[in-house]
Amino acid sequence: MSRPAARRRGAVGALQVDLGERSYPIAIGSGTLSGLGEEVARRTGAGTAVVVTVPGVARRYGAPVLRSLREAGLRAHRLVVPDGDASKSLAQVRRLYDALLDLGIDRSGALVALGGGMVGDLAGFAAATFLRGLPFVQVPTTVLAMVDSSIGGKVGVNLPRGKNLVGAFHQPRLVWIDLATLESLPLRQRAAGLAEVVKKAAAFDAKLFARLEADAEALLALEAAPLRAAVERACAIKAEVVRRDEREGEAGVRRLLNFGHTLGHAVEVLTGYRRVLHGEAVAMGMGYAARRSEELALAPGGTAARLTALLRRLGLPTELPRLPRRAYLEALLVDKKRRERRIDYIVLRGIGSAASLPLTPAEILPARGRPWERAS
Amino acid sequence: MSRPAARRRGAVGALQVDLGERSYPIAIGSGTLSGLGEEVARRTGAGTAVVVTVPGVARRYGAPVLRSLREAGLRAHRLVVPDGDASKSLAQVRRLYDALLDLGIDRSGALVALGGGMVGDLAGFAAATFLRGLPFVQVPTTVLAMVDSSIGGKVGVNLPRGKNLVGAFHQPRLVWIDLATLESLPLRQRAAGLAEVVKKAAAFDAKLFARLEADAEALLALEAAPLRAAVERACAIKAEVVRRDEREGEAGVRRLLNFGHTLGHAVEVLTGYRRVLHGEAVAMGMGYAARRSEELALAPGGTAARLTALLRRLGLPTELPRLPRRAYLEALLVDKKRRERRIDYIVLRGIGSAASLPLTPAEILPARGRPWERAS
Repeated sequence: MSRPAARRRGAVGALQVDLGERSYPIAIGSGTLSGLGEEVARRTGAGTAVVVTVPGVARRYGAPVLRSLREAGLRAHRLVVPDGDASKSLAQVRRLYDALLDLGIDRSGALVALGGGMVGDLAGFAAATFLRGLPFVQVPTTVLAMVDSSIGGKVGVNLPRGKNLVGAFHQPRLVWIDLATLESLPLRQRAAGLAEVVKKAAAFDAKLFARLEADAEALLALEAAPLRAAVERACAIKAEVVRRDEREGEAGVRRLLNFGHTLGHAVEVLTGYRRVLHGEAVAMGMGYAARRSEELALAPGGTAARLTALLRRLGLPTELPRLPRRAYLEALLVDKKRRERRIDYIVLRGIGSAASLPLTPAEILPARGRPWERAS
Repeated sequence: MSRPAARRRGAVGALQVDLGERSYPIAIGSGTLSGLGEEVARRTGAGTAVVVTVPGVARRYGAPVLRSLREAGLRAHRLVVPDGDASKSLAQVRRLYDALLDLGIDRSGALVALGGGMVGDLAGFAAATFLRGLPFVQVPTTVLAMVDSSIGGKVGVNLPRGKNLVGAFHQPRLVWIDLATLESLPLRQRAAGLAEVVKKAAAFDAKLFARLEADAEALLALEAAPLRAAVERACAIKAEVVRRDEREGEAGVRRLLNFGHTLGHAVEVLTGYRRVLHGEAVAMGMGYAARRSEELALAPGGTAARLTALLRRLGLPTELPRLPRRAYLEALLVDKKRRERRIDYIVLRGIGSAASLPLTPAEILPARGRPWERAS
């Protein structure tokens, strides 16, 4: 990235997503949940805050978050949705609408998404559409949500036929990252979240990539200094991408963030959004895309090997599941990034440099060989 | 309104909604459906257009609209939803998503809403949320949709507990008004649509109000010159209000368009969105609001009488249905314009001048007397 990614300000290490009137801070700290309420009050102007979360997170962080909101003078309520991507559905959105009506939420209300990417996407979509839009705040508690899904305003739900087929662009008023909430995150989830950090490094920032290579095991162990540095840099990259291309325009930079996602989404669809975590699916998609980039003579030899070595050190898969090529092709046909028959497939020109290439599904997955056996 | 409401341009009498990059024209003509396709292609850049409509409109105008789209080089499909406000539901939106997936619509697709306000709101909400937003075009075929709901980007659906509780702001790329499509509109529907013209005149434009008084019967009969003049002026007012206050901000002018709507919505909820047309409910709400404005000594004596006389000449009701006060109070409690316990109630300071007043439901509907018996 050629420009400074985002300004740093404030005691808790705040970055800023610059979007004119809709600008908002990304506050990064550790053990900072008690300060959340005041910022929510200031940034939303709300009288009532509704915290949307999942059972495990509610048990651990529900009480301190509600306390912080109430101490800041807000009325605060909690809505708990079931764990898992199955909750990212229209049926669940509808239940949230009903719950918001039961609570008497009006336009002076705000939503607070406390949890991982599913919670942020779901609560964000409810916020985008209830009463034509309520302010909302992202309080991500997974690596994935911190460095990726909580920033940039992409919210939405899945349909049975595909991921994120329904949604909106609705920017949060604040992203509040408390790194201490990661301590309860299982190792597998940490690794899956770090896949998105690797993605940003591979697509945009060779220096960050080298740092991840130096710190891979320390990051998995949540060592404070490298963790904070990696999360800050990943958030800064995301913030800059969103500033330059808020709505994922035609030739925009934001679509480069889809590196690993085209086939990653296909894997998630084909495995029914179970078994494989989002970050794992993205790691598989990145591994395949890097190998394909070398085959197409876009990336120098060794690019894929370097990427997959880092992913493997993080305990992440780098090969697609053994499913028929036909199944992948069909899954790509409902990919929402498809314009007419070509897909904007994201390839690497090398570590730190991604590019978008309009390819047909058959060009992404050539007939010779099987996808999971392509030479690396 | 103090500024020129909107610029006029183009052969078909085009106004413009000025919203920077999201500006769009309102093209007003008669017998102009054959020119629609070319404008849709130009304004959306789409390869495929999906026309959303209702059975009666599909029978009458479906073929010429599809032909026009195809002659402009677009692939064109038609989706017909059942008549009536019951179709403005989440269930129907979901069926549209499924139909769009069946048609293989991707981000190169556009939606065309062909019909009245229900079709525009429903198709617009589907366009706002499918794949996080497709371009869409409004082709209103009722007076109501022409002068009000097709302009300004408010889209959404009802929940069983209230009207328009779910929605978004999603501006169309084009509003295409063919006045000839009104010829098939039943008299009752014409009158209900003219209620929204009266509303704009009463709230913003005393000169338009006087013109409506001169032309009431001619408008009901769809006489070309007065009809076109009234529709153009009403559209220009709406365009200017939207330009000044796109998202219905706190102190914004756009909420003044809710004149007659607070109790109008309550009437619709209480009558199950049947029996009473939207414009009729608004006429009832305006009648009540004008009388209440006089009671509160905000409007000079005679204001309500002048307003209700015009509404009655158009065959519109001006009194609330005989329902218990308690029922009205409860219906107001879920009104989405409610901020905390007060509602931004729109009153008149006189013909041509509306104002917003934060009132509790009990202040809007004082206990003495019964709502439908308040002195005029």
